[in-house]
Amino acid sequence: MADSSAPTRVMMAVNESSLRGYPHPSISCRAAFDWMLAKLVRSNADGFHLLFLHVQVPDEDGFDDVDSIYASPTDFQSMKQRDKIRGIHLLEYFVNQCHQLGIKCEAWTKQGDPKEVICHEVKRVQPDLLVVGSRGLGPFQRVFVGTVSEFCVKHAECPVITIKRKANEAPRDPIDD
Amino acid sequence: MADSSAPTRVMMAVNESSLRGYPHPSISCRAAFDWMLAKLVRSNADGFHLLFLHVQVPDEDGFDDVDSIYASPTDFQSMKQRDKIRGIHLLEYFVNQCHQLGIKCEAWTKQGDPKEVICHEVKRVQPDLLVVGSRGLGPFQRVFVGTVSEFCVKHAECPVITIKRKANEAPRDPIDD
Repeated sequence: MADSSAPTRVMMAVNESSLRGYPHPSISCRAAFDWMLAKLVRSNADGFHLLFLHVQVPDEDGFDDVDSIYASPTDFQSMKQRDKIRGIHLLEYFVNQCHQLGIKCEAWTKQGDPKEVICHEVKRVQPDLLVVGSRGLGPFQRVFVGTVSEFCVKHAECPVITIKRKANEAPRDPIDD
Repeated sequence: MADSSAPTRVMMAVNESSLRGYPHPSISCRAAFDWMLAKLVRSNADGFHLLFLHVQVPDEDGFDDVDSIYASPTDFQSMKQRDKIRGIHLLEYFVNQCHQLGIKCEAWTKQGDPKEVICHEVKRVQPDLLVVGSRGLGPFQRVFVGTVSEFCVKHAECPVITIKRKANEAPRDPIDD
C-alpha cells in the first residue's frame, strides 16, 4: 500500500474564541485540530494537506468598535481592514503549527454566514473531508444558538466529521467557546 | 512527530447488501471502507486498528427461512446458527482485506437494533472514531426508512464520520443497498 496517491485534503473551519476574542481560536476548533493531528494525520505529515477556512460574520451596524457620533467613512474602512487582519492572525495559530510539523497547508478568510460559506467553499474546493469543531450543546441550547456543525453534516458535499470539545474544557456557560 | 502513540482505533459498522444478501456487504459500507483505507489509513497501516461490528436484526417471527407448517424447535435453532455463520462470512470480507494490507483488526457480531447496539458498543469499546456508511437518502425517503447514521452522529460517544456511497453506485431504488 504505497502512498503514491495525492494527499488527503482536509478542510477545517476555524473560528475565534467567544471568551478571549481575536486572535485566539475557540476551544472547540482547537480541540478538533488537536484531535485531527493526533488521530488522523499521526506521523504521516506527507499524506495530508490541510485547508483552513475562517468565516467572519459581517458586523451589520458596525457600531461596536466605532464611536457612533464621530465615525467617518474612513473609520469604517479602517475597521474593515482591522477585522481582516484579525482573521489572518487567527489563521496564523494553525498555519504555524502545521509548518512546525511539516504539514502542507493553506488558509483563507471569507465573509458571510459561517454555515453557508463553509458549504459553499466545500463545493468550490472539493476537499476529501471536512472537520468541524462542536460545542456539544444539548437540544435546548441548540434551539437558540443553532449549530454550524449540524448544518454542515447535512449539507456539505463531502464526508464531515464533528469533534466535540472535551467535557473538562467546556466553560461555565456551554454557549461560550 | 513520531508515531509512538497507540494506534487510532476506528470502529466500523458493516451490514449485508439488501440486494444480494449474505455474505455480500452493502454498497454503502463497502464505499465507507474503501474511503477510509484510501483517505485516512493511506500507507500508515501500523497507525490504525480497525474494529468491525455487524449487528444482526433478530427475525421476529422467523418464518422467512423456514417452512411454517413443518418447522420444529430444532429448525429454529439451526436457523439461528446459520444466521450467525452468515454474519461471520460478511465480516470475512473486511478482515481478509485488512490482513492483506497488514492492518490489525478485530470483528464481531451482535444482535439487536443496529443504531442502539452500535452506540452501546461505542460506549463499551471506546474507539477514537466511528465510521458509518450512508445511503444518502433525501428527507422524504428518510422519514420512512430512518437512518442509522443520523442516530449515531447524534448519540455515539465519539467522533463520527458518515460516508455516502457514490452517486454512480446507487441502485435504481435508493432504499436498496
